[in-house]
Amino acid sequence: MSTIQNVTVTKKSNVYFDGKCISHTLLLADGSQKTVGVIFPSSLTFNTGRPETMEIVSGLCRVRLANETEWKAYEDGQQFEVAANSSFEIETVDQVDYVCHFG
Amino acid sequence: MSTIQNVTVTKKSNVYFDGKCISHTLLLADGSQKTVGVIFPSSLTFNTGRPETMEIVSGLCRVRLANETEWKAYEDGQQFEVAANSSFEIETVDQVDYVCHFG
Repeated sequence: MSTIQNVTVTKKSNVYFDGKCISHTLLLADGSQKTVGVIFPSSLTFNTGRPETMEIVSGLCRVRLANETEWKAYEDGQQFEVAANSSFEIETVDQVDYVCHFG
Repeated sequence: MSTIQNVTVTKKSNVYFDGKCISHTLLLADGSQKTVGVIFPSSLTFNTGRPETMEIVSGLCRVRLANETEWKAYEDGQQFEVAANSSFEIETVDQVDYVCHFG
């Protein structure tokens, strides 16, 4: 599925890490929230509030969750789960498009 | 209006000018298309296919349309029209969030 249907999109973008990560916030009909975004080549650490599922839409990345020692690779169509009030490191060498599903 | 309701959003981003402009494509219920995006500080020239209305959501920019000599300034809540098969130059010194309405 290359699209998300029936959403309300926030016009103003979210810009993190000096433009290395840009997203737009989506509100779904059931009240849940997602962001649709892109990460440019970088090594970043993201902190979570709510638990989230990171869906990799395109591109390749390496990810290490807060309480893990191993890095795992993810690419197009794959996803990983991040616990609430936690963090993950992500390394990208190309552009990565993603959808972050909160809840 | 800080949001656009009832849209289908394309998960993959559009990246132009080496990451200076990033957008996501929106399909509306009436079949019309928009993009919601951000421009980082730069001087860029955009070419149009269809006519478009550029709505500045936040930030300040200077714009010169293809057949004009004068630059005009636009900011939050303002918009400008661009003819089909034309172009415009845009200069930004801060981050500019925009919605491009095609039609």
